[in-house]
Amino acid sequence: MLGVALVGYGKMGRQVEAKIKETKDIECVAIVSPSRTKTLDEVRAEIDVIIDFSHPDNLVMIGEYAKKHNIPIVIATTGYEQAQIDYINELAGSVPVVYAANFSLGVTVMTRVVSQLAELLASDFDIEIIETHHNQKLDAPSGTAKMLLEAVDPAEEYSRVYGRKGDCKRKKEIGIHAIRAGNIAGKHTVLFAGEDETLEITHTATSKQIFANGAIKAARYAVTRPPGLYNMNHVLFKGEE
Amino acid sequence: MLGVALVGYGKMGRQVEAKIKETKDIECVAIVSPSRTKTLDEVRAEIDVIIDFSHPDNLVMIGEYAKKHNIPIVIATTGYEQAQIDYINELAGSVPVVYAANFSLGVTVMTRVVSQLAELLASDFDIEIIETHHNQKLDAPSGTAKMLLEAVDPAEEYSRVYGRKGDCKRKKEIGIHAIRAGNIAGKHTVLFAGEDETLEITHTATSKQIFANGAIKAARYAVTRPPGLYNMNHVLFKGEE
Amino acid sequence: MLGVALVGYGKMGRQVEAKIKETKDIECVAIVSPSRTKTLDEVRAEIDVIIDFSHPDNLVMIGEYAKKHNIPIVIATTGYEQAQIDYINELAGSVPVVYAANFSLGVTVMTRVVSQLAELLASDFDIEIIETHHNQKLDAPSGTAKMLLEAVDPAEEYSRVYGRKGDCKRKKEIGIHAIRAGNIAGKHTVLFAGEDETLEITHTATSKQIFANGAIKAARYAVTRPPGLYNMNHVLFKGEE
Amino acid sequence: MLGVALVGYGKMGRQVEAKIKETKDIECVAIVSPSRTKTLDEVRAEIDVIIDFSHPDNLVMIGEYAKKHNIPIVIATTGYEQAQIDYINELAGSVPVVYAANFSLGVTVMTRVVSQLAELLASDFDIEIIETHHNQKLDAPSGTAKMLLEAVDPAEEYSRVYGRKGDCKRKKEIGIHAIRAGNIAGKHTVLFAGEDETLEITHTATSKQIFANGAIKAARYAVTRPPGLYNMNHVLFKGEE
Repeated sequence: MLGVALVGYGKMGRQVEAKIKETKDIECVAIVSPSRTKTLDEVRAEIDVIIDFSHPDNLVMIGEYAKKHNIPIVIATTGYEQAQIDYINELAGSVPVVYAANFSLGVTVMTRVVSQLAELLASDFDIEIIETHHNQKLDAPSGTAKMLLEAVDPAEEYSRVYGRKGDCKRKKEIGIHAIRAGNIAGKHTVLFAGEDETLEITHTATSKQIFANGAIKAARYAVTRPPGLYNMNHVLFKGEE
Repeated sequence: MLGVALVGYGKMGRQVEAKIKETKDIECVAIVSPSRTKTLDEVRAEIDVIIDFSHPDNLVMIGEYAKKHNIPIVIATTGYEQAQIDYINELAGSVPVVYAANFSLGVTVMTRVVSQLAELLASDFDIEIIETHHNQKLDAPSGTAKMLLEAVDPAEEYSRVYGRKGDCKRKKEIGIHAIRAGNIAGKHTVLFAGEDETLEITHTATSKQIFANGAIKAARYAVTRPPGLYNMNHVLFKGEE
Repeated sequence: MLGVALVGYGKMGRQVEAKIKETKDIECVAIVSPSRTKTLDEVRAEIDVIIDFSHPDNLVMIGEYAKKHNIPIVIATTGYEQAQIDYINELAGSVPVVYAANFSLGVTVMTRVVSQLAELLASDFDIEIIETHHNQKLDAPSGTAKMLLEAVDPAEEYSRVYGRKGDCKRKKEIGIHAIRAGNIAGKHTVLFAGEDETLEITHTATSKQIFANGAIKAARYAVTRPPGLYNMNHVLFKGEE
Repeated sequence: MLGVALVGYGKMGRQVEAKIKETKDIECVAIVSPSRTKTLDEVRAEIDVIIDFSHPDNLVMIGEYAKKHNIPIVIATTGYEQAQIDYINELAGSVPVVYAANFSLGVTVMTRVVSQLAELLASDFDIEIIETHHNQKLDAPSGTAKMLLEAVDPAEEYSRVYGRKGDCKRKKEIGIHAIRAGNIAGKHTVLFAGEDETLEITHTATSKQIFANGAIKAARYAVTRPPGLYNMNHVLFKGEE
């Protein structure tokens, strides 16, 4: 039986909990959130793995606990600053850390594919990223859009433009467009546009359940690995990367 | 034989000229552009109608000539300031003026339709506009996007957002997104997104020829009308509006 | 308190029941399905309105009961044969009947809009309908696609083509394409394609909840009306049609 | 100076000719078509490479000439039967043959990418192919759609379905849908649909010029190679495959 401590009890946390409840060999031994158990230190149960769908502010609390007790972590929170990303990298020296902006199979393979396409096409095609989310989302662009941006332009050779108004002659740049409307779960498009032809890759999520399921897969993976930094490519296509 | 004076000799001007050349009962009697005839006053031929695909700066030159000689005008230039739009309205008191941001049949009916949809859906659905054009386009959003925006929110009840980055909690607003890539002729989407459903209307132009053809249709219409301000709905669906 | 008898207890029936449970002034007084109460005659509770999400075979059982007891019906079942549609029309002479292939607001306005567009564009544009549903759907095309087809070609002036293979020179026809994949809740596109331009209207449903909600709205409407045949345009835009 | 013999003088042949005319180091030394030079044997000029955009019936005429005179061929004709494909394979033992259903860069990389995606996703995702072309196209599906089909299912493990009507419970199958409308140059989508998520790859061509350009690139490549069968991956990403 795999004992999961869940940090964060918003929409995503609840969906992870629900999925765990309907799964046999895994159980939720603790839920850490402001209105419940406040820190991992308060948890009395045995924790095998931590799944974090909370807020960047919790990173150090989680990390220090994990290091002290030698527990793998799945980090599904987004919006970290650079110093926090450095901390995650360092943490991965001590415990297994799966860190991803998106836990779906579809986005994981999309990230691979757009990275290849950018290599093959970037000299002749312009690249733009369009992401669409529900009207309650607080920030832009989405963590997934940032991940796709990194995949198509890892060396940051292009400047980034987050909207265009007025004079806007295109330079060596990538436009990132954040559409917010209705209760759309999440849609990401990478557009490659050349002369007289375009290639578009679009991922559409119709529920957040896939992210919960992916995070649980990542947790199962994390407990089998030595310390290190892993992403969903590792989880889904073990050993290939 | 309908004699057209063409003001502006960029891509669109050339396509209007080419279409006129292959049409029997219409001829191009003058081309006004910096490298040719500079003003309409220099034209010696008989002008029946003016088609303007040039620059807002030419408006008064064209308007004064039209008033003096009582000649209908098709204004296909975009990017006017409010004072210039006032001038166009006043001009329409003296001569027939067809003024539109987009001369295609598809966009004309799209404008109608999104206006209706906004009335029926705006209380329950969010609206966003996405437009895509080639990487040489100098400004954003497109004139057509502005026309669609006016169609969905004529009373300017919503604030307008031209990109989102960082904190961006959606308010009572319409997002307008300008994608620039490749040599895409023009694509406009109006997205209505409600709870668990979306409705999207997308117009795609694959050449600029349709705009040239539409402007010529508008010219034929203008010469049959009394002074007044007309749009493409008048031209295409005479008498209905 | 509005007492609903629910006929059919598949996915849609359950979602109607769930929505009713969380609504104050409405209750589910009977569920008719093979494994429960078998016919409406067996129901002892007072029924104010019937919502049918079952199978064409139940039509007469429901209709005769409704006539005898003078009870309004919401028919959300699809796949009727012509003789059954005639029966529905006749039934509407005795009791209020709301009959629709799709109960969402989005599809209801889409149907309106594509009907108008077809009138304006059909002489110059080709029309094709593309619908996408989950891989468990048993029939094609969807009831909604049929409704859209009727909206764009009410007089059946075009032949209908349900796929193309081999020699397929397009005649005066409308192509209807049924994509089946994954667990997609429902997507319908009407494509209008002319010379160098296309106009596409796409409705996407991301859950079936919207259909349940719409059916309940229809039930509330039905109990306020005299006998007659109503559709979702009547329900949502009362008196306008 | 590269001397090209062009077989076929329809739309594509003319665009190849036009592109050659505006290119310095390449010239069109012969055009073989029913209304001109009828066979390659009649051509008196020196031929360096043959580009064929004609009809399967010309295959043997072209092939035998190429073998006899040891001339590379670019085969851009589609619609061959199996025996003809066998002939092409054999022909490639004697002369360099570039054979592809689509000569654009975009479709070439798309074919690569969907092949990979199918390997990663096919166990969990359904695959459907949707292609859209102008209303004058005589056959379905397009050669490009067939190429994509082969890329996603090289071992023909899935049955193929070319439209759905009536009972159509999905089996282990791939649906291929041919939309015909307006003058759309060519659009191909491969849809991967899993549980609560979809991934779509769409290529859009807005003119046929890209195919002409690609065929000329292929001709330049062919003349540098030993006998063998090459595709556009070889031409565009030399040595990689």
